[in-house]
Amino acid sequence: MKIKDINVSSYPNSSKIYLEGTLHPIKVGMRRIDQLPTVKIKNGVRIEYPNNPVTVYDTSGPFTDPHCEIDINKGLPRLRESWIEKRGDTVILDEITSEYGKQRLSDPTLDSIRFPERNKPRQAEPGKKVTQMHYARKGIITPEMEYVAIRENLDNAERGIKSYITPEFVRQEIASGRAIIPANINHPESEPMIIGKAFSVKINTNIGNSALSSGIEEEVAKAVWSCFWGGDTLMDLSTGNNIHETREWILRNCPVPVGTVPLYQALEKVDGNVRNLSWEIYKDTLIEQCEQGVDYFTIHAGVLKAHAKLIEGRLTGCVSRGGSIITQWCVEHNQENFLYTHFEDICEILNKYDVAVSLGDGMRPGSINDANDSAQFLELDVLGELTEIAWKHDVQILIEGPGHVPLQKIEENMTKQKKACHEAPFYTLGPLTTDIAPAYDHITSAIGAAVIASLGTAMICYVTPKEHLALPDLSDVREGVIAYKIAAHAADIAKGLPGASVRDYELSKARFDFRWKDQFNLSLDPFRAKEYYLAARKSDSEGTEKFCTMCGPNFCGMRISLNIAESCKE
Amino acid sequence: MKIKDINVSSYPNSSKIYLEGTLHPIKVGMRRIDQLPTVKIKNGVRIEYPNNPVTVYDTSGPFTDPHCEIDINKGLPRLRESWIEKRGDTVILDEITSEYGKQRLSDPTLDSIRFPERNKPRQAEPGKKVTQMHYARKGIITPEMEYVAIRENLDNAERGIKSYITPEFVRQEIASGRAIIPANINHPESEPMIIGKAFSVKINTNIGNSALSSGIEEEVAKAVWSCFWGGDTLMDLSTGNNIHETREWILRNCPVPVGTVPLYQALEKVDGNVRNLSWEIYKDTLIEQCEQGVDYFTIHAGVLKAHAKLIEGRLTGCVSRGGSIITQWCVEHNQENFLYTHFEDICEILNKYDVAVSLGDGMRPGSINDANDSAQFLELDVLGELTEIAWKHDVQILIEGPGHVPLQKIEENMTKQKKACHEAPFYTLGPLTTDIAPAYDHITSAIGAAVIASLGTAMICYVTPKEHLALPDLSDVREGVIAYKIAAHAADIAKGLPGASVRDYELSKARFDFRWKDQFNLSLDPFRAKEYYLAARKSDSEGTEKFCTMCGPNFCGMRISLNIAESCKE
Repeated sequence: MKIKDINVSSYPNSSKIYLEGTLHPIKVGMRRIDQLPTVKIKNGVRIEYPNNPVTVYDTSGPFTDPHCEIDINKGLPRLRESWIEKRGDTVILDEITSEYGKQRLSDPTLDSIRFPERNKPRQAEPGKKVTQMHYARKGIITPEMEYVAIRENLDNAERGIKSYITPEFVRQEIASGRAIIPANINHPESEPMIIGKAFSVKINTNIGNSALSSGIEEEVAKAVWSCFWGGDTLMDLSTGNNIHETREWILRNCPVPVGTVPLYQALEKVDGNVRNLSWEIYKDTLIEQCEQGVDYFTIHAGVLKAHAKLIEGRLTGCVSRGGSIITQWCVEHNQENFLYTHFEDICEILNKYDVAVSLGDGMRPGSINDANDSAQFLELDVLGELTEIAWKHDVQILIEGPGHVPLQKIEENMTKQKKACHEAPFYTLGPLTTDIAPAYDHITSAIGAAVIASLGTAMICYVTPKEHLALPDLSDVREGVIAYKIAAHAADIAKGLPGASVRDYELSKARFDFRWKDQFNLSLDPFRAKEYYLAARKSDSEGTEKFCTMCGPNFCGMRISLNIAESCKE
Repeated sequence: MKIKDINVSSYPNSSKIYLEGTLHPIKVGMRRIDQLPTVKIKNGVRIEYPNNPVTVYDTSGPFTDPHCEIDINKGLPRLRESWIEKRGDTVILDEITSEYGKQRLSDPTLDSIRFPERNKPRQAEPGKKVTQMHYARKGIITPEMEYVAIRENLDNAERGIKSYITPEFVRQEIASGRAIIPANINHPESEPMIIGKAFSVKINTNIGNSALSSGIEEEVAKAVWSCFWGGDTLMDLSTGNNIHETREWILRNCPVPVGTVPLYQALEKVDGNVRNLSWEIYKDTLIEQCEQGVDYFTIHAGVLKAHAKLIEGRLTGCVSRGGSIITQWCVEHNQENFLYTHFEDICEILNKYDVAVSLGDGMRPGSINDANDSAQFLELDVLGELTEIAWKHDVQILIEGPGHVPLQKIEENMTKQKKACHEAPFYTLGPLTTDIAPAYDHITSAIGAAVIASLGTAMICYVTPKEHLALPDLSDVREGVIAYKIAAHAADIAKGLPGASVRDYELSKARFDFRWKDQFNLSLDPFRAKEYYLAARKSDSEGTEKFCTMCGPNFCGMRISLNIAESCKE
């Protein structure tokens, strides 16, 4: 199989710039948007006032670097490989060690769909831990930490906005567990990014096939598309065919951290028969995915056998796929959740690759009726207990959150999570603030996401218009990402992050100057903004008119404002 | 001109029901959504448990009543005419009295576009006031008041939810000024609705042409379409050609209150030359529109000459069209705003027809940078002063609010408005929580709207994806209305209105029962929800599968929950 190159256009009037590190020889990619000058006529003389370019956070990786040759069949450059190598605490294994991985590799019927390039897996030297938390606690500032510090500050010095995030501050946040950098040593293609309350709000996107849909090529396209629009991390939630091979293609071409729910694949391995799940199958799946390079695992270790009976009292039971599977297993075997009982074992595997744990909220409410109930909050207490275990093993950790929560109950979630989980970063799905809008749940949830993120949630998981109805296609990924970029940005401004509103300022200035092109170029989706404008103003393909179709020339408030300012001066 | 009937399909599995008044012989239209039974198999026996129908608020008027014959060229039935007649305090004028109205009527070149039916205008008897506030203060419960009381309660008695809104409570809220019922006696086609903090949050939609676009037929279609999707009120913001005639077509076919900004038409009358605006031209425009039946006027009376200089310090000046026009007039004439100096005269005209005032916020911020600045808040104080004048004349009043406001500054707006304007209902545009998403501003603003409405804003004005770029078309109206229905509903739940989450409960129950059809039918946009589902599940046109393409059969949390519940019982 050959996958043809994914065609992502570059952003208009934008260039890829690289900022250099001072502690490490690193280059941090960002997008610089250039602007036209502001033109004023004074006493009949045309004067141009230059407008500074705007630097924005860029998740698209090498795909938008014209100097980088992209070949999906070869994968992205291995950015972090030399950093990892230099630390000298890892070994390269002779072969992959999971049983399942070996079996897939030796199956000739898979030759046609297997990713062509092969890299041997890397692992910590015996007895070592290689997590960013481990380094941070030892006082080491890694290249990854310096990278995210530069990335978070953007490049606002010329606007008088001080760089407030230092590499040392990043190290402290990682050491304390308040932030994480998901960075599996087997996914060196990924550009470091940080998830924590003190930093800009991140968004996760979900892709993945199900038994009923979608192939490898389509999923890789969704992954690249998600990064292009602004997804900070990507979860591959595939539950269909060939998920091992699909994941390999995604990882080798994904410039952002990739997460999975290993339980899904474990269940596929036992043909969907929950009873036959076991710690051994799950463990082999963890190793398989650690060696492929997955950066974080959603693990439903907080679902306890004792909580199963709480499901019945709910309107919508247990809507977490992982949570319901594990609960069924507990009930059928009358045993405690093996993810809970083996959590220390899990941590000991993960810290050999630096895979972060994202503790799944198996009891997240599936309707606003079930929000903030005892099933949900009892699990949260268990997640707090597990957080301390993960930290004991220097494993980085996220806490997943709801779900469906009405506006008035959102704050309680954030407060309880912060207390129960010792300030480990919160990572919420939405939340959806009403149940009545299937096909528009990117909006019902963007409302909740903006509110909870402004209260301190570190990462919000996008919801697409297809939520509850079908798997998202490329167009849904775009809608979902933009809705969540909006929510995250609104929260960044509300949190008072220095420089968060620079882009708003510059876009509004462009708007007031009637620099239509700059207004488009500075927007989250320049293509659609321009498309809407041009559809109505076919004669103005250059975007030079000093009014729009909304108001027409006589009714343009901004145009009249300019006249008033002139009159006031006279 | 003949306009062909607007084709709005009825909602699936829904019927129009009418609840009767007890004080007055009124019939209040609502939509009842019937449901399938929940089916369970117990010991091999199939048992059906019926599900109660769900009654929802219905803004679509006669358009969704199959017993009502719709003819756009004749207009809607004149529902309130007999109520108004019965009060015996109005007279029917022999002819329209505005100069401009007469001129348009006598112009034969307009024959082809004029609405075919003609009704003589009605006015209060000399010396009388005919506003709902006037009646309320006299202790009279009008049919309009009883109508909205029934409408707000919905029909939830069988769910044990008590009717909490009585006609007397409505009267008190109107009398105090905390709520209004926009109900011009010359727009008897409109179904009464109430705007106030104690009631469900309402949404306004804006339509209207500009000099660059759109004709009568298109605007009428947008009006009907807006009501169909759930718009509670409709503003015709036309600034282009034939706005007198366009408005007549809209009013005669609009089952919800219609608002305008009379200043726009006044400016058209002086060919867009702001300097030539005058109180006389404006006054004639008010009378013209009062006699046509406009239910509320946006009046920028709070913009003062002294505030003009504040505009210059702003990033985006004055983005309110009305505000900028009036400011320019003040500056050019070096005179105080004639809307401010003539506000008592305006009230004396309006209370003869029961036209409500919606005090425009001429200084609303056009960028988050300008939010909550002195220009905005100084005007708010003036609006408070004008509120007391309106109330002195028994004129119902709304206060318009921003605009662009970042999340952390929203609450201050609500608090200040409540204090400055003595609890008069707040009516906000959005607010937009970031400036960087043109083409998605229905989302940036739905976030702000949900938050401000949950804090007490009574009505939120929709924003469509075309905001800042072009005029909305039919598809944008649908997107904007649904986004705002979501925001309003999320706020109703947050406010704790009894029965607000019944629809959420029933939809989620249907979801958990895999009653796909009921899930679609109960949703805000049943058509799109079904379309998305079916596109992925072509084989399931009946919606009977017990899983969806998102998860496939083995990974459906809800399906597994049912198994767990069974296992727990065993």
